Amino acid sequence: MSLIIVGTVAFDSIETPFGKAERVVGGAALYGSIAASHFTDQVKLVSIIGGDFPQAELDYMANRGIDQEGLQIIKDKKSFFWSGKYHNNMNSRDTLVTDLNVLADFDPVLPESYKNAEYVMLGNLQPEVQMRVIDQMNTRPKLIILDTMNFWMDIAMDALQKVIAKIDVLTINDEEARQLSGEYSLVKAAEKILKMGPKYLIIKKGEHGALLFHEDKIFSAPALPLAEVYDPTGAGDTFAGGFAGYLAMTNDISFENMKRAIIYGSAMASFCVEKFSNERLKEVDEVDLAARMQRFVELSKFDIEAMAGA
Amino acid sequence: MSLIIVGTVAFDSIETPFGKAERVVGGAALYGSIAASHFTDQVKLVSIIGGDFPQAELDYMANRGIDQEGLQIIKDKKSFFWSGKYHNNMNSRDTLVTDLNVLADFDPVLPESYKNAEYVMLGNLQPEVQMRVIDQMNTRPKLIILDTMNFWMDIAMDALQKVIAKIDVLTINDEEARQLSGEYSLVKAAEKILKMGPKYLIIKKGEHGALLFHEDKIFSAPALPLAEVYDPTGAGDTFAGGFAGYLAMTNDISFENMKRAIIYGSAMASFCVEKFSNERLKEVDEVDLAARMQRFVELSKFDIEAMAGA
Repeated sequence: MSLIIVGTVAFDSIETPFGKAERVVGGAALYGSIAASHFTDQVKLVSIIGGDFPQAELDYMANRGIDQEGLQIIKDKKSFFWSGKYHNNMNSRDTLVTDLNVLADFDPVLPESYKNAEYVMLGNLQPEVQMRVIDQMNTRPKLIILDTMNFWMDIAMDALQKVIAKIDVLTINDEEARQLSGEYSLVKAAEKILKMGPKYLIIKKGEHGALLFHEDKIFSAPALPLAEVYDPTGAGDTFAGGFAGYLAMTNDISFENMKRAIIYGSAMASFCVEKFSNERLKEVDEVDLAARMQRFVELSKFDIEAMAGA
Repeated sequence: MSLIIVGTVAFDSIETPFGKAERVVGGAALYGSIAASHFTDQVKLVSIIGGDFPQAELDYMANRGIDQEGLQIIKDKKSFFWSGKYHNNMNSRDTLVTDLNVLADFDPVLPESYKNAEYVMLGNLQPEVQMRVIDQMNTRPKLIILDTMNFWMDIAMDALQKVIAKIDVLTINDEEARQLSGEYSLVKAAEKILKMGPKYLIIKKGEHGALLFHEDKIFSAPALPLAEVYDPTGAGDTFAGGFAGYLAMTNDISFENMKRAIIYGSAMASFCVEKFSNERLKEVDEVDLAARMQRFVELSKFDIEAMAGA
């Protein structure tokens, strides 16, 4: 099934305790579409870049089957640029620079060939922009996944609520779930958020894994403990792209299959953080992914027998 | 198999966002021994209390088969008292009062009937006191589990290192694992700590579950997401007691069985936090525990099939 991925394609300058990367490629839709392309060749990119974006990276994505008809290239302008520095614990970071550049005028226009896609992944963007994508679809997609962040809760809560009401799966982190719901307990937060529209809520907890909420069911996905996290940038987008790509490939949106999709997304994210930018994702093949999936199975498998002696 | 549980039996005054509890019973060995008694009637308590400790609580523990021959009662002194206030997020707390009282002179003396126990759980205490318990055993126990905290790392690291070298399973939280090892990555921290003596390391992550490390294997146990956590006091001790009690009941210290023991410990801890003090633990029966275990199974179960479409 085809999968539209909407979001930023950008340059990042990143400093982590392990080193620095200057003006490497990044952005939610770049990470997401590459992750999704490991599962399906039906990925359709919607984004905007300037004339400064490297052709080699576009060629790489095209070779992975990522459709770029929905990618606007503004030749005489610059691509979105973000610069950040991670603290020693890698769980928090300071934004040093945000140059919107082409993103300031981003008005996504869906090509005709995109408008009947069954799966849509809306990366973190201004809620109104996310809504305009939904409005352009000819038919209601089978599944709309939306990622957002605290920034939009701070400055555009009404618009965010409107788009959240239109989607199926919301992916946010634990602090954002608390902010959006006004509840500290994630169980109570999920109850409230699932009343806002989405049928599924994924709470991303970084090194602590992820939680999937649906009706009264909860799935807790582990994160793979890693000896070295070089650069967490893009991990959440890679997770979401892998999740969406697996669902589009299998075309099964049952709770059981979403659990699998979360583990596949987590596996892709665990690769992403092992190097800067999309370097590690470029190396991953089916054998690597199968081996990594096996590690997730071993990490979380246990057998409970009846308590004979109790 | 018999299981010695060493630690505090005390009074706590606790304030959480949900309410206050004044001078309720608590202490690592109280929580641990009650949790363990859900699995085995061979629990042997080692602790010290004053004449002020309620006889009804001692009777309750005796009725659960908890052997109190190793419990010293100093009639004219007061029991250990701790008072704390939890912050809104329940993950951090301020200690308001610590009155050592009888604990200042605690010199555990093992009764003869304890000295051949196969399982020993050393609750958080001064490392020298933990060591004196090990030294009194007639035979090397099959398994020694030790809990400790950052306080001893700050003021008694040498003594702590000495006792850690003598044990099999160390239970600490993530920040303590980082402090003990000097490594931020928990994988690297575990590598270093497993070279200090213990064959197993359990890293307790509270609402994020727990990690079990052994050789090159890792198990990630989920925590049950709860709508309301009334009082986290004693959750770690209840976890350790349930873990140790399940191992003593099954007398199987394989990695696979330790995984099960961690889930049983987590289930007991998930009850503990639902009310103040040991109130909720007193209500739990085998049916409750089996139902809670089933929730852990559903929470973490997923089936990965071959990626046909990849």
